[in-house]
Amino acid sequence: MSDVLELTRALISRPSVTPDDAGCQALLAARLQAAGFACEHLRLGEVDNLWATHGTCDGPTLVLLGHTDVVPPGPREAWHSDPFEPTLRDGLLYGRGAADMKGSVAAFIVAAERFVAEHPQHRGRLAVLLTSDEEGDAIDGVRRVADIFRERGERIDWCITGEPSSKARLGDLLRVGRRGSLSARLDVHGVQGHVAYPDKARNPIHLALAALDALASRRWDEGYEGFPPTSLQISNIHAGTGANNVIPGELEVLFNLRYNPHWNADRLVAECEGMLNAHGLSFDIRWHRSGEPFFTPEGPLRLAAREVLAAFAGADPEESTGGGTSDARFIAPLGAQCIEVGPVNASIHQVDEHVAVADLEALPDLYGALLERLLA
Amino acid sequence: MSDVLELTRALISRPSVTPDDAGCQALLAARLQAAGFACEHLRLGEVDNLWATHGTCDGPTLVLLGHTDVVPPGPREAWHSDPFEPTLRDGLLYGRGAADMKGSVAAFIVAAERFVAEHPQHRGRLAVLLTSDEEGDAIDGVRRVADIFRERGERIDWCITGEPSSKARLGDLLRVGRRGSLSARLDVHGVQGHVAYPDKARNPIHLALAALDALASRRWDEGYEGFPPTSLQISNIHAGTGANNVIPGELEVLFNLRYNPHWNADRLVAECEGMLNAHGLSFDIRWHRSGEPFFTPEGPLRLAAREVLAAFAGADPEESTGGGTSDARFIAPLGAQCIEVGPVNASIHQVDEHVAVADLEALPDLYGALLERLLA
Repeated sequence: MSDVLELTRALISRPSVTPDDAGCQALLAARLQAAGFACEHLRLGEVDNLWATHGTCDGPTLVLLGHTDVVPPGPREAWHSDPFEPTLRDGLLYGRGAADMKGSVAAFIVAAERFVAEHPQHRGRLAVLLTSDEEGDAIDGVRRVADIFRERGERIDWCITGEPSSKARLGDLLRVGRRGSLSARLDVHGVQGHVAYPDKARNPIHLALAALDALASRRWDEGYEGFPPTSLQISNIHAGTGANNVIPGELEVLFNLRYNPHWNADRLVAECEGMLNAHGLSFDIRWHRSGEPFFTPEGPLRLAAREVLAAFAGADPEESTGGGTSDARFIAPLGAQCIEVGPVNASIHQVDEHVAVADLEALPDLYGALLERLLA
Repeated sequence: MSDVLELTRALISRPSVTPDDAGCQALLAARLQAAGFACEHLRLGEVDNLWATHGTCDGPTLVLLGHTDVVPPGPREAWHSDPFEPTLRDGLLYGRGAADMKGSVAAFIVAAERFVAEHPQHRGRLAVLLTSDEEGDAIDGVRRVADIFRERGERIDWCITGEPSSKARLGDLLRVGRRGSLSARLDVHGVQGHVAYPDKARNPIHLALAALDALASRRWDEGYEGFPPTSLQISNIHAGTGANNVIPGELEVLFNLRYNPHWNADRLVAECEGMLNAHGLSFDIRWHRSGEPFFTPEGPLRLAAREVLAAFAGADPEESTGGGTSDARFIAPLGAQCIEVGPVNASIHQVDEHVAVADLEALPDLYGALLERLLA
């Protein structure tokens, strides 16, 4: 059994449901330490974070970024085998985290061990950053680690996240950015009353409809580089007591913006509030900023990744900025170029999550080839 | 203690929470029967209805229309005295139903007794119609009685409902019509999805906003005779699971129309559905028709009522078509002219409901004067 397969199995058998690391990082730190890495354990709240470095700061720093936590498996009986008992079946390795992203993390370690063994005097710094809080609140994980790095003046040039990015085959997609996400809870105030006496009430639903229509139908931009257009979606809307003869006094609306680098959160907040004010609404709004967008333009990291992936997949990868959010959103603002490369994501967050053994065994070579190109 | 006060107290002490009559109608039927009325008890489902007549069909039929049921009192401790223990305090009679409308019902009986005693050979027919299902579903009450009347070919010329119509003093308002009420439950269909991939979803909130805005902001008419303009109010709107990253698949909207005789329910249904279709919505809609509008134009009933009220209140009454709905909506379609006259309505449906004893004791004279004008 290959080294990466064995290590992935050892990680899957540790039930590290977010934010519990369940001993994964201790296992990995022991291996990195044996390979000559300096390991720092950052326990923040209930979250374990591992920062392991090899080399010196007189050249570029490349970070391999991953997480040891997994989403809950759901009911055991929905799975064909126990989600925390790694199981091989028909060339696939099954288990919670097999694809998202214990396989990538194991491959990081194996690739890093091999690389420093072959290049003990490589240029710059090779680092591994792991957290156990990517799938959960993502408060005490990489977000806080990035704050600590900022205080320390830690410089990061390149960051490779092992998120499962591939669509149909390993290496067919290279993620080079992510949209920002901004959420709002809007409360529109009216005056409650009886439907028979509309003059004595102010219906917050009626008052808000035109403003909400303006927000929902606005074309925010035409896209940006590889990014899709910025989009606002109303996810929840609630008013009324159930009775059909009462005009409600309040309307509650939740909406979310996914935005490209045309925008930042502050400008979107100002724009939305301006539109609500322009419609004369009486309202309160609370904003939740979950991360600005990031984008990695053409440069050494993106070029190296494209060429390595093309060699593995037999064709140039699609370069994409789609999808949700990842921890790269916290590293990019430090000035790092960020990409995401990992296995096929078809089964993540689902029952019977799995990774192809062939892909898993190719991953250390893929990450190793990137290290060769960038730090050898 | 006056006859009408004593009878009102006897009714209040029977806790006839809708649709329970709690023995009120038996008490009243016994008195009417003793006065020479023919009494018919119509038990429909769980509802008691009483139809009592005196006189002959060769002249006009005048119906005194009332209900013995009351709305629930709510928590006992919120009241200053037990809602079902009639209590006199500072010239006011307290108890659930004192104003809505056991006082009017008692006054009907006293006025009817006196009238037939003085005019045993009065012209036409004097009738009393009582139900125990006005405050509730209003299915097995006057609605079904009217169906029975229609089958029998029963003719009704005039109907005086004892609903508490007065605003500040007894007789200051004469209700000469009511708007119609039409309710809808609208389900707008979309396609659920993730906010990060709006192209794969169809957000039913976004799709519906413009159509709802058109419905809510439409000016349906400019009013009709004494009626206020027709009004549509959205009372409830709901979509979303609580999560801010999910585009919901369905939107549920409840709305209600209060309309004047410019419209009828069928035309409004067609108009609303046409507007929803014009916006290209995929939707289901269920309509609930709670009663067409009615209007009593100038004529002998309205003239008599105006003059009697002016004599009692010292000034011409306001003639109004405002307010909610009443059982008159079921009698008017039989071809009857309908008015509503009763005590001050400030405390109805609230804790510490009450009626002024002076008003209560004037009511039999007020109704009696109307009987004199119309049937003597």
